[in-house]
Amino acid sequence: MDRTRSGQTAVVSVIGIGSTRYGTLQTSFAELIIEAAVQALDDAGLRPEDIDALYLGNFAGDQFIGQNHLASYAASAIGLQGVPATRVEGACASGSLAIREAAFAIRSGFYKRVLVVGAEKMSTLPTAGVTSMLAQASNKELEVEIGLTFPALFALIAQRHMHRYGTTREQMAAVAVKNHDNALLNPNAHMHKKISMEEVCSCTSMVAEPLNRYDCSLISDGASAMVLCCPQLAADYRNDVVDIIASGQASGPFEIFANDDLTSFSATRLAAASAYEMARIAPGDVDVAEVHDCFTIAEIVATEDLGFFQPGEGGAAAIEGRTRLGGQLPVNTSGGLKAKGHPIGSTGVGQGVEVVTQLRGQAGGRQVPGAAIGLTHNLGGSGGTCAVHIYQRR
Amino acid sequence: MDRTRSGQTAVVSVIGIGSTRYGTLQTSFAELIIEAAVQALDDAGLRPEDIDALYLGNFAGDQFIGQNHLASYAASAIGLQGVPATRVEGACASGSLAIREAAFAIRSGFYKRVLVVGAEKMSTLPTAGVTSMLAQASNKELEVEIGLTFPALFALIAQRHMHRYGTTREQMAAVAVKNHDNALLNPNAHMHKKISMEEVCSCTSMVAEPLNRYDCSLISDGASAMVLCCPQLAADYRNDVVDIIASGQASGPFEIFANDDLTSFSATRLAAASAYEMARIAPGDVDVAEVHDCFTIAEIVATEDLGFFQPGEGGAAAIEGRTRLGGQLPVNTSGGLKAKGHPIGSTGVGQGVEVVTQLRGQAGGRQVPGAAIGLTHNLGGSGGTCAVHIYQRR
Repeated sequence: MDRTRSGQTAVVSVIGIGSTRYGTLQTSFAELIIEAAVQALDDAGLRPEDIDALYLGNFAGDQFIGQNHLASYAASAIGLQGVPATRVEGACASGSLAIREAAFAIRSGFYKRVLVVGAEKMSTLPTAGVTSMLAQASNKELEVEIGLTFPALFALIAQRHMHRYGTTREQMAAVAVKNHDNALLNPNAHMHKKISMEEVCSCTSMVAEPLNRYDCSLISDGASAMVLCCPQLAADYRNDVVDIIASGQASGPFEIFANDDLTSFSATRLAAASAYEMARIAPGDVDVAEVHDCFTIAEIVATEDLGFFQPGEGGAAAIEGRTRLGGQLPVNTSGGLKAKGHPIGSTGVGQGVEVVTQLRGQAGGRQVPGAAIGLTHNLGGSGGTCAVHIYQRR
Repeated sequence: MDRTRSGQTAVVSVIGIGSTRYGTLQTSFAELIIEAAVQALDDAGLRPEDIDALYLGNFAGDQFIGQNHLASYAASAIGLQGVPATRVEGACASGSLAIREAAFAIRSGFYKRVLVVGAEKMSTLPTAGVTSMLAQASNKELEVEIGLTFPALFALIAQRHMHRYGTTREQMAAVAVKNHDNALLNPNAHMHKKISMEEVCSCTSMVAEPLNRYDCSLISDGASAMVLCCPQLAADYRNDVVDIIASGQASGPFEIFANDDLTSFSATRLAAASAYEMARIAPGDVDVAEVHDCFTIAEIVATEDLGFFQPGEGGAAAIEGRTRLGGQLPVNTSGGLKAKGHPIGSTGVGQGVEVVTQLRGQAGGRQVPGAAIGLTHNLGGSGGTCAVHIYQRR
């Protein structure tokens, strides 16, 4: 497919980005959202009074910090006065759904400039508590109560992928090693720690076989933000506009047993097909991608479902370095959920921030040279929700 | 202002409505949403496969029923396959925000027919637990921890309204009596119980002075649903189309102490002004209104903030019967949150269902003769969020 940029109609444009560091932070939820929001506003050269609405992506603030009604709370904290504030939730895809709702609102003509913030404060609970809370994104009665927490769900997926395609322990380890390497180049990443293939493969801290602790994403605090505006106005705010040229969203079976095939997420395939069609590009046109690596196997599956590699070839692609910086298609240059961190509601917005940073050419040591088209892939639950966005440098 | 319908541009059109009964029900959350959704689809003459997306209004299902990621859960339960499913939360205004997001999505051109479901299952917790959960819609650190639950917050508002305007115990009681009377005419209402002025005024079950148990809305289970479609297609589905001709949303100060004036909600005034301007109507053009009577004083304040009555005259209007069936402007013909019930996430959608029922002329014993324009007013927190929608019979 031709890669020309002419004739593209942007859905919405990104004129500001901001992000806190991800990690186990002393910062409060309010401080996190303010920091990310102020950065994004500053980056756009706007003040709070220039903003027409706020969208907040957040998964479970009511349980993590005992505070609900968080969009209005955030609007007050940030100093947005009077403007509509709406929280959007779609499990781990909450951030991307917030971006999509903001895009709809702008395209509908109701707003011109919208602030999107994704945020989650998770370190308030011990790990077991977080695991229980995340498990609420799967079916309580039919999955959680028989022990299917998320590590267990993705362990089933990994087992099946290994059985069907011969995916190996080493291939999954390659994802973890790469994402840790990338995170070393990202000052905002949660984990700055180089790991080796041997460490990952020989780790005996099993979480859910075959996934050990190196296969699992991090429990992080963090907030990321974007200022979106209607494409016609974007050039008034900055020279290096990045457009969102496609937004795809789909649902998949809510329960894992309702999937025909455990090695692929139908929601990813549907959302990606919709996004590629809207952007009029093919998977091979993508220069840089942030995908939902909640577990190492999830990145392998995502790179297959997104059409970057054939089904069953994602593992080989990872271990051959095709998704590394300098490879055919650098994936999770930020460090991904695995090493950048995974503050649930923030993740989708953070993925967008990374892609915009890449398309602006501001990614420093992790820059993908000449990146013009970027993709984000954000998954909720065990595939119940997926959102795919495609970004393009103007 | 001229009341002509010509020249109006509908934001979106309503082609199907449905609702469960509200009450303390044995029905599960999944059964509630299925019942409301199937009714709305049947009413529109559509099947699940005709629907392009689902929006769910829900406040705190993760705590009430231990299940999060509820939009995807709902899509699976209803039998919607593959289509985007998004949960929207704005405290007690969650349902109206879901309608608004669906409207944005349709207007943006992404979808043609969208199912909106509002739902909450609250009877899983004892009353004190519900009060604590609702309190999460106000500021945990600055309000809840000093005892400002919602009854306490609205008691402050009532005290101030009485002090400033001479609003009386009897005037607030008139709201309760009227809404109970209306609920007797609504088969779906939670409470079917006639009450007298004397009972309300002499009640010694004080919740937060001056509010006694008759001044408080109900803790209910329930779900309501609507099928929205783009205005151009609506006539293909039914003859009695009702259009949403305006949607207004605003935020107010999150904490009650940040308000200049406790007798009025700035979010209501902003949202209403925006909606009236979009609809090109004046408050006097409204034939029937569902307003957010979480407490009797809240209905009085709402009827003032919406411009139906002058500030300070809402109480007199109530006791003089001007908001009764047959009065100048019937308010809460459904019974309102007070007697129809208040399943948080469902409330805004349920208000819309009532107004559409009225505008279709199908409200039976509570029908407002010739109703052509209806308004819904849905408040979140102590005024942190407000959404106002205006509906018009085509």
